[in-house]
Amino acid sequence: MSAFTTSIQVRFGHVDPAGIAYYPRIFDYVHEVYEELWERHVGVRYYKLLLEERIGFPLVHSEVDFRSPLRFGDRPEARVTCVHLGRSSIGLRYHFALEGRECVDARMTTVCTDLRTMTSTPLPERFRARFEAIREAP
Amino acid sequence: MSAFTTSIQVRFGHVDPAGIAYYPRIFDYVHEVYEELWERHVGVRYYKLLLEERIGFPLVHSEVDFRSPLRFGDRPEARVTCVHLGRSSIGLRYHFALEGRECVDARMTTVCTDLRTMTSTPLPERFRARFEAIREAP
Amino acid sequence: MSAFTTSIQVRFGHVDPAGIAYYPRIFDYVHEVYEELWERHVGVRYYKLLLEERIGFPLVHSEVDFRSPLRFGDRPEARVTCVHLGRSSIGLRYHFALEGRECVDARMTTVCTDLRTMTSTPLPERFRARFEAIREAP
Amino acid sequence: MSAFTTSIQVRFGHVDPAGIAYYPRIFDYVHEVYEELWERHVGVRYYKLLLEERIGFPLVHSEVDFRSPLRFGDRPEARVTCVHLGRSSIGLRYHFALEGRECVDARMTTVCTDLRTMTSTPLPERFRARFEAIREAP
Repeated sequence: MSAFTTSIQVRFGHVDPAGIAYYPRIFDYVHEVYEELWERHVGVRYYKLLLEERIGFPLVHSEVDFRSPLRFGDRPEARVTCVHLGRSSIGLRYHFALEGRECVDARMTTVCTDLRTMTSTPLPERFRARFEAIREAP
Repeated sequence: MSAFTTSIQVRFGHVDPAGIAYYPRIFDYVHEVYEELWERHVGVRYYKLLLEERIGFPLVHSEVDFRSPLRFGDRPEARVTCVHLGRSSIGLRYHFALEGRECVDARMTTVCTDLRTMTSTPLPERFRARFEAIREAP
Repeated sequence: MSAFTTSIQVRFGHVDPAGIAYYPRIFDYVHEVYEELWERHVGVRYYKLLLEERIGFPLVHSEVDFRSPLRFGDRPEARVTCVHLGRSSIGLRYHFALEGRECVDARMTTVCTDLRTMTSTPLPERFRARFEAIREAP
Repeated sequence: MSAFTTSIQVRFGHVDPAGIAYYPRIFDYVHEVYEELWERHVGVRYYKLLLEERIGFPLVHSEVDFRSPLRFGDRPEARVTCVHLGRSSIGLRYHFALEGRECVDARMTTVCTDLRTMTSTPLPERFRARFEAIREAP
């Protein structure tokens, strides 16, 4: 099994008075990594999906463990695997780690949606293989 | 059983190109409602906890169902109940609804933490009763 | 001369590690006050302008003095006056103050824009009088 | 004269329902570029300044022209020059451009501040030369 990896930077405007990342900012990181995954791993710029193909991936469920705080100046590694691949739904798992120590473990389920009708639609086949490529062994 | 209720406003800067609330903003709403809960229900301003009592409540776990999108201009009702009350840990449940239709169901677990040592500390007794007051029946 | 007044709340997620409001958040406050102005003073909900009337007010110029920091827990008073009222352009001035001490003085110029063509369009007459009502004496 | 250049990415969560960058997000970009400038041009990570040297650079004045909208998926080039270099104050100018077309021209004045006393302090000499290196001709 393979995974998609990238890195994140905890900036000044992301941390709270205790110097640790305010948790809603961690969801911004998750979305940022998701956009990188589409562009660099799947091979399509995320905005093209929305503006040209008129499909989107609204989040329907998230479950997150915050194991260790991220601090101002940290540059955690982000690692994404696919934990579920249905007809329309995609479950992705994001690990953010600092020097091998896990900080965040986020499981996010999105559903491929036709933005014209706002109903679910099958994940196009040409994308499916790219998610298979980062699938976690069962 | 009782609950704490307040309302949220989905503003211009919170919505994405599809006109629906970008999900990291929904976590901003959850924190905003949490600050309101401390001030109006528990009876202490949240910043006093941090700056004067030197305790904080880092999030350790979240599990959220996004059932229906929030759109620009919506003013969902937020309803908070307590689903777990341990020695240090507090589990709160946030329902955001529009005219009775549930949009978001978020369960958030935080741990009362001594900010000087960054270790867990018992929830002060004078706060406990206020969380009991919004406890869900088992 | 009159002014539109409201208040702002400096929340946990808005402040930086030094405990003062991160300046991009201050521009969020300005937009929040602007939305309140439309709703409570002009008498139209801002999202109706965009979604139904298909006009918007992109910012073309801003000039801001940051005189005194806003801190976590502060609740500054916001006061808005109109400093320029052209055919399409509106210049608004936002003062944020804590107990009479000025913290922020922001002058923001927006242009009434037809969102279908993205070109300037005259400010509708029924709105003009409401901006005249908060106009600063020359 | 030289300038510091980097690039920005207009992400999904930064744009409003009209598909253009919500202006407070543009100030996030300015701060992001500023952090890059410190790290890659001046040669010190911004968080080290704050946490170790205990100096900061609060913004005292900003003046910004928004000439052309930034849209979802855009990757403007950012170019920074120094327009003022006083004992403690630094005036920086940020140009954001798309294929040579200027979108944003922001002049931001910050003051070197001792975070222990919150009073202005001279810009350390070892940093001064790096700002001279990107100084605009008068």
